[in-house]
Amino acid sequence: MTVRAAVAGASGYAGGEVLRLLLNHPEVEIGALTGNSNAGQPLGALQPHLLPLAGRVLEATTAEVLAGHDVVFLALPHGQSAAVAEQLGEDVLVVDMGADFRLASASDWEAFYGSPHAGTWPYGLPELPGARAALEGSKRIAVPGCYPTAVSLALFPAYAARLAEPEAVITAATGTSGAGKALKPHLLGSEVMGSMSPYGVGGGHRHTPEMIQNLSAVAGEVVTVSFTPTLAPMSRGILATCSAKARPGTTAAGVREAYEKALADEEFVHLLPEGRWPATASVHGSNAVQIQVAHDEAAGRIIAISAIDNLTKGTAGGAVQSMNIALGLAESTGLSTIGVAP
Amino acid sequence: MTVRAAVAGASGYAGGEVLRLLLNHPEVEIGALTGNSNAGQPLGALQPHLLPLAGRVLEATTAEVLAGHDVVFLALPHGQSAAVAEQLGEDVLVVDMGADFRLASASDWEAFYGSPHAGTWPYGLPELPGARAALEGSKRIAVPGCYPTAVSLALFPAYAARLAEPEAVITAATGTSGAGKALKPHLLGSEVMGSMSPYGVGGGHRHTPEMIQNLSAVAGEVVTVSFTPTLAPMSRGILATCSAKARPGTTAAGVREAYEKALADEEFVHLLPEGRWPATASVHGSNAVQIQVAHDEAAGRIIAISAIDNLTKGTAGGAVQSMNIALGLAESTGLSTIGVAP
Amino acid sequence: MTVRAAVAGASGYAGGEVLRLLLNHPEVEIGALTGNSNAGQPLGALQPHLLPLAGRVLEATTAEVLAGHDVVFLALPHGQSAAVAEQLGEDVLVVDMGADFRLASASDWEAFYGSPHAGTWPYGLPELPGARAALEGSKRIAVPGCYPTAVSLALFPAYAARLAEPEAVITAATGTSGAGKALKPHLLGSEVMGSMSPYGVGGGHRHTPEMIQNLSAVAGEVVTVSFTPTLAPMSRGILATCSAKARPGTTAAGVREAYEKALADEEFVHLLPEGRWPATASVHGSNAVQIQVAHDEAAGRIIAISAIDNLTKGTAGGAVQSMNIALGLAESTGLSTIGVAP
Amino acid sequence: MTVRAAVAGASGYAGGEVLRLLLNHPEVEIGALTGNSNAGQPLGALQPHLLPLAGRVLEATTAEVLAGHDVVFLALPHGQSAAVAEQLGEDVLVVDMGADFRLASASDWEAFYGSPHAGTWPYGLPELPGARAALEGSKRIAVPGCYPTAVSLALFPAYAARLAEPEAVITAATGTSGAGKALKPHLLGSEVMGSMSPYGVGGGHRHTPEMIQNLSAVAGEVVTVSFTPTLAPMSRGILATCSAKARPGTTAAGVREAYEKALADEEFVHLLPEGRWPATASVHGSNAVQIQVAHDEAAGRIIAISAIDNLTKGTAGGAVQSMNIALGLAESTGLSTIGVAP
Repeated sequence: MTVRAAVAGASGYAGGEVLRLLLNHPEVEIGALTGNSNAGQPLGALQPHLLPLAGRVLEATTAEVLAGHDVVFLALPHGQSAAVAEQLGEDVLVVDMGADFRLASASDWEAFYGSPHAGTWPYGLPELPGARAALEGSKRIAVPGCYPTAVSLALFPAYAARLAEPEAVITAATGTSGAGKALKPHLLGSEVMGSMSPYGVGGGHRHTPEMIQNLSAVAGEVVTVSFTPTLAPMSRGILATCSAKARPGTTAAGVREAYEKALADEEFVHLLPEGRWPATASVHGSNAVQIQVAHDEAAGRIIAISAIDNLTKGTAGGAVQSMNIALGLAESTGLSTIGVAP
Repeated sequence: MTVRAAVAGASGYAGGEVLRLLLNHPEVEIGALTGNSNAGQPLGALQPHLLPLAGRVLEATTAEVLAGHDVVFLALPHGQSAAVAEQLGEDVLVVDMGADFRLASASDWEAFYGSPHAGTWPYGLPELPGARAALEGSKRIAVPGCYPTAVSLALFPAYAARLAEPEAVITAATGTSGAGKALKPHLLGSEVMGSMSPYGVGGGHRHTPEMIQNLSAVAGEVVTVSFTPTLAPMSRGILATCSAKARPGTTAAGVREAYEKALADEEFVHLLPEGRWPATASVHGSNAVQIQVAHDEAAGRIIAISAIDNLTKGTAGGAVQSMNIALGLAESTGLSTIGVAP
Repeated sequence: MTVRAAVAGASGYAGGEVLRLLLNHPEVEIGALTGNSNAGQPLGALQPHLLPLAGRVLEATTAEVLAGHDVVFLALPHGQSAAVAEQLGEDVLVVDMGADFRLASASDWEAFYGSPHAGTWPYGLPELPGARAALEGSKRIAVPGCYPTAVSLALFPAYAARLAEPEAVITAATGTSGAGKALKPHLLGSEVMGSMSPYGVGGGHRHTPEMIQNLSAVAGEVVTVSFTPTLAPMSRGILATCSAKARPGTTAAGVREAYEKALADEEFVHLLPEGRWPATASVHGSNAVQIQVAHDEAAGRIIAISAIDNLTKGTAGGAVQSMNIALGLAESTGLSTIGVAP
Repeated sequence: MTVRAAVAGASGYAGGEVLRLLLNHPEVEIGALTGNSNAGQPLGALQPHLLPLAGRVLEATTAEVLAGHDVVFLALPHGQSAAVAEQLGEDVLVVDMGADFRLASASDWEAFYGSPHAGTWPYGLPELPGARAALEGSKRIAVPGCYPTAVSLALFPAYAARLAEPEAVITAATGTSGAGKALKPHLLGSEVMGSMSPYGVGGGHRHTPEMIQNLSAVAGEVVTVSFTPTLAPMSRGILATCSAKARPGTTAAGVREAYEKALADEEFVHLLPEGRWPATASVHGSNAVQIQVAHDEAAGRIIAISAIDNLTKGTAGGAVQSMNIALGLAESTGLSTIGVAP
């Protein structure tokens, strides 16, 4: 099979990462690359790490340019995907790395994004119960947010096994690429290096309803989420520290067993042996997820910690993995579980 | 007043930091500097940033060398302070930056440190209720751990005002200097840069009982603490994200008011205006603490976040601040609230 | 003496640093703070590390606002200082941290800056031969560029002693704050962290004629300079590696002696003992300069290396040091030789 | 073809990187992994980023363990390769990533390494004139040092075209992984982050004679090299700034043409379009080399700058590339020119 893929928004971090992965994908041929303010520029000036594509020139993001591909990846600002997707045929696989089609609840969408809800597409986190079946053969995929990927994978085994109370408390540290290439003062290197800082504290982060949606579906009841994101002095990576009160009768052995069972068959999600803890460096540039879990008896809590690369498994890797499922390819085609470390 | 001060353990990070501060202290004259494996070496080779002391030579840590000073700062590995302190006269002010005398509970000490309890000294976190009075005129000071400093200052206003349930959930990110100068593989620059990783998860960190001690004293009931420390790619700084369930009836305005009231008179602890969040870079090299608090109505939790410099307010700055109180000097003598940023 | 000082351009990195230093200066009272696009904002939102000034509000940069001060520091974009300075009285000390008045040669200025030459003011690098005398009592000071500060201090002893051929080859690494707070894609944290890159290669950097001016004056002949600046993944600091062919007959002992002699009386410039090498961390936040020099016999070259903090000695510290001289204060008033490390 | 490969020294950074690359090599099957002090430990505890090998256990480095492989990679401390290599058969391809067999001159070896010279093997920098022919079919390969790789590739076109005088001046910045996993105080994260520092200044670095050897061979005369290495706050990457006086008559166009001609057919060495400059982030984890060159007319010098990943093209990638040639495989098999950025 040769799949011809276009990338809309090829000058940003998500667009660059999906291109990095597609260049290694044996079944994909890279077609049109688009970008609005950067149309006309060579990719070599914008993504100098993608040497094989250095001479390719960005085109404008139009239906004409994106036509004639088997797959179109959308790496556009939130709220712009729906208009583009509408113009693409129903037989084209559209993989949206933005937020537009992630939420099932129109009211949640409107509350957090302040615009009309565009709809809901099959959710590209294959490891969640039921997600693979929805992706198979689908022509539309909503790639999860980076934080919801890290958090949902860390906590779903606890909720699937009814070990945790439905009140999750989460702190996550992200690399700055999670904030994109937008020119904002707090993202300057001078501000970021040597500094940790929180943002969107107290329930305001747009990824919160997505986490609630995922965890509640697994738990079979509404799970509240208190989520604090922090910005860390690194380019890539998310370390999510997730905890919930343990239900009465929970034991360390029971927690371990639940995680082993839930993750046993996953190629990309790796429960570490006891005594080792995730590090974002270990999954740098890889689609792997490292997870460890502890039962704090004294505090009566389960603490699950995951490390992902926010751009790979958290965005473009999850997108390619979901594309593989939708197209009937082996799920790990073109993806790696090997990090670039140190 | 001229206070003659000795520093035992002058080659490590805590020792270096206390010297950096004492060099700026108008009432202090720096006396003996000691170090065991480094005795005989010039400080310039070990602490090249302390230019005015470059030619000073480290001596062995003995009672003879430390004799004849008004103040002795102990920056020794945990468990070594008691033996040294015993040999110093009762009229000498001994400021211990190690853990030995922090805990009131001998059983907690033995459970977390695995050795006999040495005793309990007045606790050098002046901002906690009752702490200043205990420090005034004292000849012995136990400087708090860096994490307990950040966490206790972030949460005590909530507990003092009875706003929070007695189950605190805390994730903190620390710079690598918090782990000291010990040569361990995971502290190599190659491992640390670009990576976030947790450690001591699930209740095992030695600072946990100290947090419980501080918060329980303020709350008037036992507060459980679920504490997850993480290592961040920066040399200095702690960002502590602390949360607890809000008691029924809590409002955002009530939380704000409680924090304003609790922190109004503090020179070093600064509650940020609403809408701004702490960043460790802002307190780099400073004794200031930046705090912000939010009430997450949907999740029913209070989230308090603090940023400190782990070596300054978290260790050596807290030590000098407490020394000032013990000696009857103005509390802020020789200390700064100005960070070195960016 | 109480000196009332205003800072024009208080929201940028140079402006913030001069305020950080002035807050510690015993003879200075901080007056008006101005900024154009940020006028009306509180400084706490722009420079959150300057806690004592958090409530101060920026005013517009006008002659009226800047009137009535003893000293005005200009931290403005290149080319804007002349217009402001003209409006300030001749009895006001104007300290320009921009480039406008650094070069003696109008043709050099026009070639590198592309605008008419504004003039030449006494040059604020007191350690250069003759510089102090020109600064004493002066009402106008041109603060050197950060790179010329690091390079001139590293090489002038070699040229003063006629040890080096007049062709200097220089590579310098700077922290990102040297590029200011301008919002440019290559200055984003995501781009900077984990990366070294050069810029302005081949003679184009605007600091090159300033280095040539300084070194030629000391050498008594025209010194050519091949200068390559590189951007390093750190916020602050310059490490300048400077070399020149040794003149015939040069010996290692002769080089050492020349440097010892040239730097013996300087408070801020410190020649390290043999066997130790400068590190930018050692001078972080300090006005100190660390220098070491080697004679490579096999290659027949002298290699002199300096480390400075680009914002302190390289900009605002040099400005305050020069102000002290101009005002007749002790040269080191309010300045420190102690770095914030690690 | 299936090539069975062993790695001696699999717990270090060079060993880990060669495994990372071999896992992606379609013709290689990974055999024995050895390490001395770490024998008996699972690789997952030592190289947590190499998920597919997490369960493999390190064996001792003995002839018996290494027997029965087609290729043996030696990632051992300098001076240990010869003894191991002797015990391996002459029909085994031995790829030494240490220094033992790089230098042709026994006296250079003895002067810089202080031990008897072990011999000289074909040199694994295929892009140098004549190097490929020597590697074809060879059973022994000496992989170049990381700095000589970056420097030789940057400067050989200038010397091959007789454009440069035989006196090269080089400053290079390396990531900390270049110093290996050895536990040394100056390699701690706390020391490295936020700091640039030089080392081995003045001709003492062991890579200097290797650069002289390479450049002199191309130039047809002895090239002196003044080399200053610096340690940068990043894990990976080398940025080498290399310059030499231009011979009379040199023009910018002539320099450009010489570089284009010399590098036109190389898959891994990429001369950037004019106006763009190398960045180490662009080649992170990749075997690519980015090069740019300038002619500084005023200073009369050629400045060539290269960026490599010190662990990939600088060590393990160069090793695999050379192995491919020796085995008659396509030179780029299993290697990538795509960096992991940002």
